[in-house]
Order: sequence, then structure tokens, then C-alpha cells
Amino acid sequence: MLTQALDFARGNQARFLDEFKELLRIPCISTLPDRRDDVRRAAEWLADELRRLGIEKAEVLKTPGHPIVHGEWLHAPGKPTVLVYGHYDVQPVDPLDEWVSDPFDPVERDGNLYARGASDMKGSIVAFLKAVESLRASDGLPINLRFLFEGEEEIGSPNLPDFISNNRDMLGADVALNCDGQILRPDLPSLTYALRGLAYFEIEIVGPKQDLHSGMFGGAVHNPAQVLCELIAGMHDADNRVTLPGFYDRVRPLDDEERAALAGNPVTDEDWKALAGVKALWGEKGYTATECTGARPTLEVNGIISGFTGEGAKTVLPARAMAKVSTRLVADQDPAAIHGQLCAYLRAHAPETVSWEVRELSHGDGAIMDRRSPFMQAAVRALRETFGTGPVFKREGGSVPVVAMMQKQLGFDSIMMGFGLPDDNIHAPNEKQHLPTWRRGIEAYIRFLSALAE
Amino acid sequence: MLTQALDFARGNQARFLDEFKELLRIPCISTLPDRRDDVRRAAEWLADELRRLGIEKAEVLKTPGHPIVHGEWLHAPGKPTVLVYGHYDVQPVDPLDEWVSDPFDPVERDGNLYARGASDMKGSIVAFLKAVESLRASDGLPINLRFLFEGEEEIGSPNLPDFISNNRDMLGADVALNCDGQILRPDLPSLTYALRGLAYFEIEIVGPKQDLHSGMFGGAVHNPAQVLCELIAGMHDADNRVTLPGFYDRVRPLDDEERAALAGNPVTDEDWKALAGVKALWGEKGYTATECTGARPTLEVNGIISGFTGEGAKTVLPARAMAKVSTRLVADQDPAAIHGQLCAYLRAHAPETVSWEVRELSHGDGAIMDRRSPFMQAAVRALRETFGTGPVFKREGGSVPVVAMMQKQLGFDSIMMGFGLPDDNIHAPNEKQHLPTWRRGIEAYIRFLSALAE
Repeated sequence: MLTQALDFARGNQARFLDEFKELLRIPCISTLPDRRDDVRRAAEWLADELRRLGIEKAEVLKTPGHPIVHGEWLHAPGKPTVLVYGHYDVQPVDPLDEWVSDPFDPVERDGNLYARGASDMKGSIVAFLKAVESLRASDGLPINLRFLFEGEEEIGSPNLPDFISNNRDMLGADVALNCDGQILRPDLPSLTYALRGLAYFEIEIVGPKQDLHSGMFGGAVHNPAQVLCELIAGMHDADNRVTLPGFYDRVRPLDDEERAALAGNPVTDEDWKALAGVKALWGEKGYTATECTGARPTLEVNGIISGFTGEGAKTVLPARAMAKVSTRLVADQDPAAIHGQLCAYLRAHAPETVSWEVRELSHGDGAIMDRRSPFMQAAVRALRETFGTGPVFKREGGSVPVVAMMQKQLGFDSIMMGFGLPDDNIHAPNEKQHLPTWRRGIEAYIRFLSALAE
Repeated sequence: MLTQALDFARGNQARFLDEFKELLRIPCISTLPDRRDDVRRAAEWLADELRRLGIEKAEVLKTPGHPIVHGEWLHAPGKPTVLVYGHYDVQPVDPLDEWVSDPFDPVERDGNLYARGASDMKGSIVAFLKAVESLRASDGLPINLRFLFEGEEEIGSPNLPDFISNNRDMLGADVALNCDGQILRPDLPSLTYALRGLAYFEIEIVGPKQDLHSGMFGGAVHNPAQVLCELIAGMHDADNRVTLPGFYDRVRPLDDEERAALAGNPVTDEDWKALAGVKALWGEKGYTATECTGARPTLEVNGIISGFTGEGAKTVLPARAMAKVSTRLVADQDPAAIHGQLCAYLRAHAPETVSWEVRELSHGDGAIMDRRSPFMQAAVRALRETFGTGPVFKREGGSVPVVAMMQKQLGFDSIMMGFGLPDDNIHAPNEKQHLPTWRRGIEAYIRFLSALAE
């Protein structure tokens, strides 16, 4: 059976790729209100695809925001049920002028397919669907499947918690397969067993009632852009630790065994530098880059704007300044607590000359999973057989709140198996999917479903 | 003669205002390349107006940038010659959505005329031309006039120094009348005798080769937005003094006599707060707001931008961050030296994790003028007779580089007499000209030209 399915996948590569490109052409940017119809179009595309594969009850379900695609196939009695999770929405594309080709007109260059969403994460969704198609076309699916594809992951999944808690029966399973992930290198697969949580804020500093002439008022009025810079500068100390009060109180320390395991990750500081394209790394004193990004909490400025930023010189003292600031959190930090810590920091440090406001845009829990479960071991086998090596266990710096949500609400872990690569430029211009890795992904999913049935 | 001219001005107010609005409708924003034709249109409008007034050799002269309008009338032998200076270009209008009415469709509300350039400084240019018209229509001009209207003041007058040094004969005079100015209140005129210099920069911090995913790289890569904030935060010390190395070395201290004279300015800290619309003032320790803005150097953030600043949450670690930073300078600081001081500061404080660049966008000298000259005394008389009080002598926080240029190149002081008000929102949304003050400005210019002839 397995050989037939793998043969089917290999024999249909060209068509599989064409269908992948079809989905990539839909500009389903969830954060942009005027892309709402495109997001819905992507959901319909997926539901149609599930129906074509013989998945039952395939449908586009309404939420107060973007829709959720659901479906199920439960005809493998006595075998495990896997809840397959993915998100079909994508990030915005700005700065658009840094893209070599149109982000929504997929183009192949040097073995990569360039498009927004190619790696994060339409690539892995389509790879999984092609694995299902390959199994159905040979001896049939060996296990039970349920599907949950959401359209709001890139905006913090605001409607997913309610959807999951209101539909526990419909989503019941033994384990989740979360296709939103990456492997380390084309020749080295990996399995993520921990994710960071996220809390994302907008901070606004308001000074004068309106923009002022910097010559007339400069020196007598506290400049909100300067105030914001001072406040942001104070959010890290000399050891590059975050200074929000209480920020580290609940951080679970790394023990020696886990530090040793993480040190087995072959990604070196030189690799990190090359990936990021920086002259030197940076981070919390006392931790490696791999530890800083996976196992330690951080705070980032995601954006800042104030005053005149166009061409030329405008001598303005801005009325206001805004920054987007987010924190990445590890076990056992509570993402809901960060808002209070940030407000406490601002209360303590914002000067009396200005007023300020903090708006929480989203937050989500991190997660840690059991590396020794049979489901995880099935994934280990599938990856090792497909790639001939590995996989390496790793902790992920990014946030996949749904993993924690499923742990809490549905009671099972997620196997994080997706086929992006670290240099795929996700959330950035020129996002790509490495096509040989994508094809191996289809094979690994076929092997994973087969291994689960044993 | 004086009475006739004043009567003429009063009898033609409605037409004068219509002609003022005509000029305000031209969106001559000098910093925007696609407004080049509008800037030229404003120059042509002024040259036509000079011709209509019988001014000779009225013409639009080319420069490598925006044109200069020139003209002369030299038929008052034995009387002084005044070089009349103005700039007809205006600031950009963003943020456009904060304007109550179209910035280039002048609208009267509550005795004010709202439009970009109404106060800075088409209002005073037109007021002066109407004073000339009123005198020509009665007993004729009592003194000799030369005109120099430039179109690049708001971008730092890049071509004015060459124009002045190449046309010294054409611009020869006994004194300049610089119409670019304000009085303190509608009922209290003032005369500015000192101006701050300016040096304006763009600072760019470059980190990773492109925007990165803040979850994957956050904690291992130094965030350029954070670096820029830290560098800007360090540019002021705890006493709110500027920390650029050598910044205060050549600052001329305020002596007790001048501090006492400046303390006679009736503008209180409460007035400053109300004008700016802030909860509390700010400034260099040990100096009043009037001193901080007029007689002490300052550093301002005019704009800052990095990363994602649109609606929603994008989890990006930005590749670069940019700030526009300018300094206001007093005698005897050298504006050309600030670039070196800023680079020295960045060399000392920028971390090794990023690269940086500083671009000087413009710089210009400040100036101090003789308060006791006969020209200044003629201005004192004209203002006192028109307003029935004052004027107060003051130092101006803004920069009018042409005043220093004329001192150096042409050898004469400028009388700074313009009729804006401090709450005119210049360089900001909803710029306005107070119309009763504008009409008094026409009368004050009539009296000034007459007083100069005596």
C-alpha cells in the first residue's frame, strides 16, 4: 500500500504543483479588511478540494471573523483519529517593492516556488491533502481524519478558542497533526516539541494637541517620538533582559538535560548569522541563540512610526508616536499577564509631560509536548524513512497558539510536522517554498499516516 | 499721504482678501517633486502681481531648483533701499485627515483664514504687496525697493546662497525686510532680533538583510528599531541636555541683561502649555521655556519609522529603521559642525550588531541683529502706531537661514516683521491666518515704509 501511494505521489507531481499554485494565487491576507472576500475564496477552494478527495461533511463554517473549513473521514474502525490543523490565511506583503515577483503570482526559481503563503503555510496544507489523495488513490486511508483549517492565524486566531470549545465533539481525536512548521534543512528533518506564546501590543504616546513647529516649540515641549524611544530603550537592561516588572517570574528554567539536547541542534551561531544576514548575533546574556529563540522569552519592536517620514525635511515636532511591541513567551508565563506588566512599566517610567495608551492586539499560549508518545514516535519514523536521517527535536521561537488551545480544550498534544525551511522568508518579502522539500513532505505525510495505523 | 494710503487699504479689503486666496490655492509644496509645476505657478503669480504694481524688472529667475522672483523700484533718490524677502513655497500637508477643510481651498472661520501657507508665509507676502499697492495708489512709494521671493525655504534654501553671492549688485540695499515672522498676540506686536540655526539629518540603522519573523529570530538578532530607539534615547541626558560630543562648546551664554529683557516677554509657561496643548512643559534644566526655545540649542526627532505600522498585528523583526533628527542652534554654534558631532556620537554608541548611516539634509546659520539701528527703530514706530502698544523684542526658536546669509554676503541686517501668530498651526494641520492681524499687517507695512523715508 505504502509503495503504491508513494508511486502515485511521484507520478502526479506536475498536477499537484499546479493545484498548489492555484491556492497561492488567492491573496487571502486576513489582517486587511478589503481582502475579506479573498479569504472566503481560499476557504471555498479548500472545502471543494476536501470534497474531491471524498472527505465527508466538508464545509465552510461561519465565525464572527473569517470562516473555518471542516471535514471528516471516520471509516477506519479501531484506528486512531487525527485532527489535522492548518491555517489558510497569509501575512501582508509590504514592503511590496522588495518582492522580485508578484507575491500572488507564484514563480519557480532555482527549485523554489516564490509566493506569499508558499511556506507559511499553504505549502504544507496542500502537501498533506496530496498525501491523502495518494493514499485514497491506492489502498485507502489507514486511519480516521478530521480537518480544521482556520483563516485567522496571522491575526491571532480571535475566533478559534470559541469555535473549539463550542465544537468539542466535532473535533474529538487522539492527537492533532499541526502542519504549520518547518524542518531545519532540506537534508535534516526536525520535530518541534515546544512553542513560544505571544502577546502583541500597540503603544501610543500623545503629547501636544497637534503637530508643532519644531523650531518654535522644540526645547519646551517633550517630543512624543523621543519619549517613545526612551520608553522602548528602557525595556531591555544591559544584559539584554526584558525589564517589564515580573516578566521572568514564571519562566520555567532550562535544566541541564534539555540544554544538552538542544545543544545537539546542528544549527550554529554562524548559521544563525547567515540566515538573518547580520554582522553579529545578539541576545540575553548567558544563553545560546538557539536557547534565546526557543526557550527564553523576548520582547520585540515590530514597528514604530511618528512625525514626518516622507522624502525631504519637515521641521515638525510630532503630536503622537506609536509602536507595535510584542513579547514571545515560554512555559509557564501567562500571556494574559503581560498587558498588566507593560502597563505597570509605563506607569513607572512614562513622564508626566505626555499621556499614553496600550492596546492589546492579541495573545496566545505557548506549549510543550511529550517527546516520547507513540504519535511523536510515528512522526520520528516517517521523517527518518523519508529523509534518511534525523529528526532533531527542537523548540520553536514562533507562536502557534492553537497547540496550547487543543491541549487545554480537547486534551491532546499536537504533532508539529510542516515542511517549510528557516530561510523561506516567511512574514517577509520573497517568501518561498523549497520544492524538493515540499515533495518529501508529501511522502513523509503518507508514511506518518501509515505509521499511525500500526 | 499716510492717511490716504491707509484709507485705500481699508477701502479695498475685500478685493485684497480675494487676491490672497488666489495665491493660497496654488499647492506649491517645495519638498514634493510632483508639485514642481505648482511651485513655478506661484512664482509666476507673484511676478505678475509685481508687474501690476509697477515694479520694474519683475521676473521669474531660474535656479537649479525652484525659481526666484525678483523685481525693483528705485525712484526715491536719497532714500534708503530695502530688500524685501519672502518665500512663496509651503510645507507638506500630511496628516491630511486632520485638516477640517482642504488645505488648498482657503476657508474663513471665526475671523481666521484656513489654508496651508496662510501664515507661513503667503499672508505676510500679500500684506506687503498690498501695502505697496496702497502707497502707489496714493502718493507713491517713499523709498526704494528690491524684491527677492524664493521657492525653497521649506527645504532649506539649497540654491539661495549661490544666488545671493552671484547677484550681489542686483540685491544691494541698506537693510532687508524679512516678512517671514510672527507677532506675539493680536494685541501685542513683537520684533525678533535673533534666530536659531538648523542642521537636519536622516539616521538609518540597518540590521538583518531583510525583515525577519520576530518569533523565529526574536532574541537572537538585534532589532534595528530597538537600536534606533536606544540611540535616540541617549541623545539627551537627565538634565535634558543634548549629549552629542562638543554640542555646547561654542554656545554663547545668556548674560543677565538679556535674560532680564527676555523675562519681559509676557508669554508665560501657562501660555506655552496652552499653545502647545500639553499637560506639562519640558526642557533644559535651569532655563525658562522662552529661553529654551529662543536662546538655547535643542535636538528634535522630526520623524521615525520602522517595520509594520499598518492596521493589525504583523510579527516582523524589521530589517531597518530610520529617523529624521534635527538640531536648532544658537550663536556661536557652527551648523556645519553638527554632522561630525552626530557621527561621533553614533561611532561611540551604535552597537556592532548593526550598521548605520547619517545623511545631512540641510543646515543653516542662526543670526543676532542690532536692536538699536534706525531701521529697527522705524519698525518699532510702525508697530507701536498700528497696534497702540509694544513691540516686545524677542528671540525666535525657528530658523531663517537667509537672515544670516544676508548678513554675511550682503552686509546688512534684516528687520523681521511678519504677521503670523503663535497659534497659527504652521507646519501642521489647519494652518490659518488671523485676518484682523493680517489687515493690521498691511497698515504696519505702510507705516514702516513711510517711517524709513523720514
